[in-house]
Amino acid sequence: MSDLQAVFDYIDAHQDQYIADLQRLVRQPSVSAQGIGIGETAAMVEGMLAERGFDVAQYPTSGSPIVFGTRAGASSKRLSFYNHYDVQPADPLDLWHGDPWSAEIRDGRIWGRGVADNKGNLVARLSAIDALLKVRRELPLTVKYIVEGEEEIGSIHIEEFTHAHRDKLDSDGCIWESGGRDDKGRMEISLGMKGICYIEMTVQSVSEDVHSSRAIRLPNAAWRLTWALASLKGPDERIRVKGFYDKVREPTVAELAVLAEIPDNSEGEMKRLGIDSYLLGLTGAERIRRDYFEPTCTISGLLSGYTGEGSKTVMPARALAKVDHRLVPDQDPDEIFDLIRKHLDEHGFTDIEIKAFGNEKPGRSSLDSPLVHVVDETYRELTGNETIITPTSLGTGPWYYLNDALGIDGCTAGAGHPAASVHAPNENIYVEDYIRHIKHAAMIMDRFATA
Amino acid sequence: MSDLQAVFDYIDAHQDQYIADLQRLVRQPSVSAQGIGIGETAAMVEGMLAERGFDVAQYPTSGSPIVFGTRAGASSKRLSFYNHYDVQPADPLDLWHGDPWSAEIRDGRIWGRGVADNKGNLVARLSAIDALLKVRRELPLTVKYIVEGEEEIGSIHIEEFTHAHRDKLDSDGCIWESGGRDDKGRMEISLGMKGICYIEMTVQSVSEDVHSSRAIRLPNAAWRLTWALASLKGPDERIRVKGFYDKVREPTVAELAVLAEIPDNSEGEMKRLGIDSYLLGLTGAERIRRDYFEPTCTISGLLSGYTGEGSKTVMPARALAKVDHRLVPDQDPDEIFDLIRKHLDEHGFTDIEIKAFGNEKPGRSSLDSPLVHVVDETYRELTGNETIITPTSLGTGPWYYLNDALGIDGCTAGAGHPAASVHAPNENIYVEDYIRHIKHAAMIMDRFATA
Repeated sequence: MSDLQAVFDYIDAHQDQYIADLQRLVRQPSVSAQGIGIGETAAMVEGMLAERGFDVAQYPTSGSPIVFGTRAGASSKRLSFYNHYDVQPADPLDLWHGDPWSAEIRDGRIWGRGVADNKGNLVARLSAIDALLKVRRELPLTVKYIVEGEEEIGSIHIEEFTHAHRDKLDSDGCIWESGGRDDKGRMEISLGMKGICYIEMTVQSVSEDVHSSRAIRLPNAAWRLTWALASLKGPDERIRVKGFYDKVREPTVAELAVLAEIPDNSEGEMKRLGIDSYLLGLTGAERIRRDYFEPTCTISGLLSGYTGEGSKTVMPARALAKVDHRLVPDQDPDEIFDLIRKHLDEHGFTDIEIKAFGNEKPGRSSLDSPLVHVVDETYRELTGNETIITPTSLGTGPWYYLNDALGIDGCTAGAGHPAASVHAPNENIYVEDYIRHIKHAAMIMDRFATA
Repeated sequence: MSDLQAVFDYIDAHQDQYIADLQRLVRQPSVSAQGIGIGETAAMVEGMLAERGFDVAQYPTSGSPIVFGTRAGASSKRLSFYNHYDVQPADPLDLWHGDPWSAEIRDGRIWGRGVADNKGNLVARLSAIDALLKVRRELPLTVKYIVEGEEEIGSIHIEEFTHAHRDKLDSDGCIWESGGRDDKGRMEISLGMKGICYIEMTVQSVSEDVHSSRAIRLPNAAWRLTWALASLKGPDERIRVKGFYDKVREPTVAELAVLAEIPDNSEGEMKRLGIDSYLLGLTGAERIRRDYFEPTCTISGLLSGYTGEGSKTVMPARALAKVDHRLVPDQDPDEIFDLIRKHLDEHGFTDIEIKAFGNEKPGRSSLDSPLVHVVDETYRELTGNETIITPTSLGTGPWYYLNDALGIDGCTAGAGHPAASVHAPNENIYVEDYIRHIKHAAMIMDRFATA
């Protein structure tokens, strides 16, 4: 580790520069949902990779360009990093304590939209590459750097990109964009992401709203929608769509075993949310198992008729619901969409129209890949702290397309922390976590080269 | 009828004056929902009654005052008129072809907010009283004139008023505010109004909206509401609240018999609303029976979570529904409210809060009262047209409090027509219908005096 010590020393000596690099990227707004700063930010990231000797280019899509660069290293091993340069909108602005685009440092933290998700990790890894190159003049392995600009709006073009450039994307492992430590310094290593099938359900029962006195004989859009929704899932939380669970992959013994090591944070969450128990009264191991291995069917929105103060005696002609299904391997969002359509038709709800938004497949990597061992081992060595291995994140991302579909194992690692306020006002990371992640990324590259 | 002919001649000769009286009242806005012009309009109506020699006063309430006046007549018989001086808001203004408060006359119609509902009827009856007094110097019977100012917001203080002034309200019959003819000139005589139990259902499942990836373990307000609603009524349209139908009064043989005479306007309505069939596929007599004798449970509004464009991956903490129950005799809205609360509790929905808005009891008068005979017979004589007798209106009003509770029989009669656009832009009545209703009101008073 003597050689790595020189890299760590270099990192410590150049902290100001690496922090300034991150501040520069955070100060460049890049809101994909609003089309703000996308071209400028892609060019900036491309420049940062070029400065580090990467063979880099922007791959245009009909949305944000994908920045992809490669630099060969000492061993034949290849490691990919998946990041994204786009961020969430900064709204609501009045809840920020400072300017979301200032990247100011206060109380040991860097504050700004996107600093945790995921410009901090993006620049930390580039900083590790910089330090390795400065100290050793070469990287320990081939590094592939994939930076998309639509992660916050459903990674719309990643699948298309991976199909078109499959040859360039071959790798021995992939470090993911997100990740961080808990309050006790334990870093979570996640091995997958849930998929999503997000649908909008609409129904128009008559041509216009009518006085509710006539509802005795007319079809009511709100009732049609209510009954259609109630046919999808009941209070037992079992999804009633025929075939919905058919492709759910059984957890392996190893996957079930790691669940026991996952800390139970239920008490804090229940207190924050003002509830006495979780759904179905589940606790402990069974609650945690469901979290990671069960798909969901969640009403995200409902709208129909009159929703203001007091009463309006109307029978609504139209009703709308948004329904979010989180999927687990090996469910396929397109198949799930078709099953829902079929279910509605078979239950007499041919009048309910459904439309899909941003389907993504679920992905999950192996628990015992060399990459996971390296990330786990190096974190423990670097910090003296434990890690928490989870079979999957509960969130959704393009894991499947970049890992499962290409036969690549992935895992997360990062500079985040529990109060990072991702997707919320006052997003931040600790400077200390940022510097640690630079060192951790350098260690991962070094160790994985010979793993 | 020679004497009445003199009254009719007087009416014909003074048409301009009676139309001007109506225009003056329509030009005075009186929107109870917005608190506009209530005091001014009450004073104007009080003045019109005083001019006709009524012993009249305003009865203050915590809302709009009720104007009540009496004038004794030749016989000991007493006839009441129930009207209201308040009107619906004029919005949406941009859909009116003219100023809603101008009361302009165009194409043989008087246009303006409230002209049909119900300032036209209100002034027509006052005009009939005027003509009778001018020609005969006395009324044929005692007339009681009740004019409230909150009909459009649920007749909030009528029950309180009838309790406090029961002695003044005794009468042998009551002519109601609404009514009119169909396209073939047949006047509908309705004998009741449905009651209403309008509730708002709300649920808060967690303290704040959370990311939908966490919905796997958390209670979702939108699901709770959906299941609670689905427990109230299924696609068979049968309301599942225990005891809901217990007090539904069976239609009498006579009531069922008049159904056969009610014209079936289903084809036109279905075409206008773009539907091929009514609820449950009902047609003919059974559809019409349900219209008049069955209570309803209608979702009037739904709101929860994200309802904008595209997708937002949120699990809603709050959800809201508005549910409108139309009741038939002898259901009681307060009892129905309690039954719904009990139903929710027994079905595990103690988390759903419910709140009542503007409960009103259903009321229904006898089919063969002297008043109905008089109204029916005089209309046929006056116009040579048929009437359509319906056991009840499908709408709601304070019928119970002014009739059933006081032992008074009531029925409707009026100047309306099918395209009067009540509660909508471009409300109107035909001048011809207005003058006819003045004459009809005079005939009713004359004939009922000796009925």
